[in-house]
Amino acid sequence: MGKGAIVTRAEDFPRWYQEVIAGAEMADNGPARGTMVIRPWGYGIWELMQAELDRRIKETGAENAYFPLFIPEGFLKLEAEHVEGFAPELAVVTHGGGKELEEPLIVRPTSETVINSFFSKWIQSHRDLPLLLNQWANVVRWELRPRLFLRTTEFLWQEGHTAHATEDDARACALRILDDVYRSTMEDALAVPVLTGHKTARERFAGANRTWTCEGMMGDGKALQMGTSHELGQNFAVPFDITFSNASGTLEHVWQTSWGVSTRLVGALVMAHGDDFGLRLPPALAPAQVVVLVVKDAPGVRAAADALVAELRRAGHRVRLDDRTETSFGRRSVDWELKGVPARVELGPRDLAEGNVTVVTRHRREKQTVALGAAAATVARILAAAGAQLLAEATAARDARTAEVATLEEAVEAGTAGFARVPMGALGPEGEDRLAQHALSVRCLQRPDGSLARPGDDDAGLVAVVARSY
Amino acid sequence: MGKGAIVTRAEDFPRWYQEVIAGAEMADNGPARGTMVIRPWGYGIWELMQAELDRRIKETGAENAYFPLFIPEGFLKLEAEHVEGFAPELAVVTHGGGKELEEPLIVRPTSETVINSFFSKWIQSHRDLPLLLNQWANVVRWELRPRLFLRTTEFLWQEGHTAHATEDDARACALRILDDVYRSTMEDALAVPVLTGHKTARERFAGANRTWTCEGMMGDGKALQMGTSHELGQNFAVPFDITFSNASGTLEHVWQTSWGVSTRLVGALVMAHGDDFGLRLPPALAPAQVVVLVVKDAPGVRAAADALVAELRRAGHRVRLDDRTETSFGRRSVDWELKGVPARVELGPRDLAEGNVTVVTRHRREKQTVALGAAAATVARILAAAGAQLLAEATAARDARTAEVATLEEAVEAGTAGFARVPMGALGPEGEDRLAQHALSVRCLQRPDGSLARPGDDDAGLVAVVARSY
Repeated sequence: MGKGAIVTRAEDFPRWYQEVIAGAEMADNGPARGTMVIRPWGYGIWELMQAELDRRIKETGAENAYFPLFIPEGFLKLEAEHVEGFAPELAVVTHGGGKELEEPLIVRPTSETVINSFFSKWIQSHRDLPLLLNQWANVVRWELRPRLFLRTTEFLWQEGHTAHATEDDARACALRILDDVYRSTMEDALAVPVLTGHKTARERFAGANRTWTCEGMMGDGKALQMGTSHELGQNFAVPFDITFSNASGTLEHVWQTSWGVSTRLVGALVMAHGDDFGLRLPPALAPAQVVVLVVKDAPGVRAAADALVAELRRAGHRVRLDDRTETSFGRRSVDWELKGVPARVELGPRDLAEGNVTVVTRHRREKQTVALGAAAATVARILAAAGAQLLAEATAARDARTAEVATLEEAVEAGTAGFARVPMGALGPEGEDRLAQHALSVRCLQRPDGSLARPGDDDAGLVAVVARSY
Repeated sequence: MGKGAIVTRAEDFPRWYQEVIAGAEMADNGPARGTMVIRPWGYGIWELMQAELDRRIKETGAENAYFPLFIPEGFLKLEAEHVEGFAPELAVVTHGGGKELEEPLIVRPTSETVINSFFSKWIQSHRDLPLLLNQWANVVRWELRPRLFLRTTEFLWQEGHTAHATEDDARACALRILDDVYRSTMEDALAVPVLTGHKTARERFAGANRTWTCEGMMGDGKALQMGTSHELGQNFAVPFDITFSNASGTLEHVWQTSWGVSTRLVGALVMAHGDDFGLRLPPALAPAQVVVLVVKDAPGVRAAADALVAELRRAGHRVRLDDRTETSFGRRSVDWELKGVPARVELGPRDLAEGNVTVVTRHRREKQTVALGAAAATVARILAAAGAQLLAEATAARDARTAEVATLEEAVEAGTAGFARVPMGALGPEGEDRLAQHALSVRCLQRPDGSLARPGDDDAGLVAVVARSY
């Protein structure tokens, strides 16, 4: 055991992850293999992420809709590469209403096929374009090695699907989502820095021409793919016959995108910021941003706690009162630390007698004694600063574990410890196979300065980010 | 055809309903039988309903969580009455990840069984009670006669599940949800008046001791069950072994409730308020509360429209600008009327030349010419009044179609045209069978004054509300 209630990250990172998820009461394994029960603390984080994402998605002009869970098997077969990509992961309903079904139904692994069958119905004219839809839904992909939040048979996500009159407009949409929605949410709300780039042909989405990705570095130096935005070209438009009459009345096929992030982001938050005492939440995503702890019952303590809770709520913070004095103060402190609540205010009878309280900054584990009357202002300062501080810390940690290298051999060594940036041309034609033998992969391709590839850029002239990954 | 773009309610109410749903672009049938595609206009209404419900649910102290879609078949069999109630409606996954499963998985028709298996793990002490959870999820019940929003194989809902130390506390929770969450949302947000009461043994939820219900009257005089709140007693606590140690250390079984409302509420909104020109939305649930219509392009019109949109947005309204002048003004007016937007402002060059605009109140189909500078204030007045006016209108319509009767024969006659209130004792032991022969049922039982039954009340001394129903 480590210093806290859980194993340390250095001792056993995967076990540390499990212990944080369990100890913070974020999730449990479900009864069916690979499924997950998301408990209120984990779901509260997800709800706040959803709100951050949903607001940004709507700002791009996309509207929410909802498509069915069940997809007739025949739909999936319409796009050959797509069905081949998903076939091993499908869950199949064969019986319904007490009878065997004539055509089995697939539980959606993603909704490209069903959505595109409706796009072909709804889109007639260039005036119907762009069509920008998003849905919040559960999807199912059979998972042989499940891990809570990171890889589960059922997960929650949003999937956006758009149709455009031109390839340029589709690309601009895919990139706007990547940057203004995904990167912005990840950095500004999750406080997790991400590298952006595109996937190699080997790693891209089944059915996409180009898959753009956000890659974060976790506390063990491994990469996590946190969100992807795909240019689908006309790969679905042709088989699903999605056409529009352009301004001169000629029929053309649309150009499309799809893009998604999932409850995996909750796992990213745990692994990017957690320390040996548990979760560390950025205030934007903390179901409780501050907890007021009654150390023990004594005259005046409870009244002071109630007044402080009311003051903090008036200031707009999400506040919990912990007055469960039948449980030891130490145990409760450890629990709130495990849950990652950004600020704690501890009210004990001795301190209060002198007019003081203790304020604890979770992410730095700093304690300070302040006058009761200054507690709310101190909490406000902590909450205002914590997000940027966590982002800066995670960025520094990532940069310290990122190496610029020149050869495949060097990329194997550096990628095993963190991120290796290596010229794609240096990897050679067998490069990705050889990386795979070391449990490494190309997470994304970027221009040498870290920016996104532009039309006309050849992959061989780009830099590959090589790493282990989840 | 009726006066508008759709058939009238008097001509063919079911067809009118379908035409409103299609014409307002609310939903489509999905490709798999009984499933539904919820389009942005329908989903936007549902999102607003969700927000109204979610806020009230959280005010009761419940927290959101998420439980798996798939339930092992064995779980469902643990509560005999429950599985018998749902068996004919189940969808079954028999294959996953390319293999036949050892134990088939049920796609959840409701989550009592899986949630209670976790309650038994999470609840140890009286300090863990009450445990109040809610989830927003999709559920599947095989539907032979599907109808968009009203009865679909897959639907979206919230389901609350709670555990309490005493039967009284469980009952208080079930009733608080019925009144403070459901009735409040239905009347204050949907503007649909509801009768509340409890179901007869024949009509109640499989596994409940008592099912409380909200029943609304639709435009054709039929009843719609809009939400239910169940007292489950210890019917799940015993087979799932959910126990707690009370203050004196003795083990007891918990007392439970469950409660849910679904996307059916969107259907209720259509059928309770719709007129022969389409949907009429209460402002609280209108994805667009006001549309600014550019009648036709002319110097100054577009600039005036933009300024008005900005002014209305600053006032906090949800606003759309319709400047699609390539489509005829008449066609666009009809479309916005079909969609039920509460207020329209029409800006034409001739009116504007005199400094005027036309403001239309959707639910009353009233037009008024007002000075451009007064348009925003006029819209604000319309939006402030529309909800209460729709509620009053629906209440008057329901009361006019409700009859107090004394015998089963009278109940059959009055119940076929609307609601019949008849002493339950007058129906006799075969009463519900005989009502069923006339396609009627007891929607709920109430005290003669319309209030809820209290502990000790005998059903025979209560009043039955008899009606046709969806």
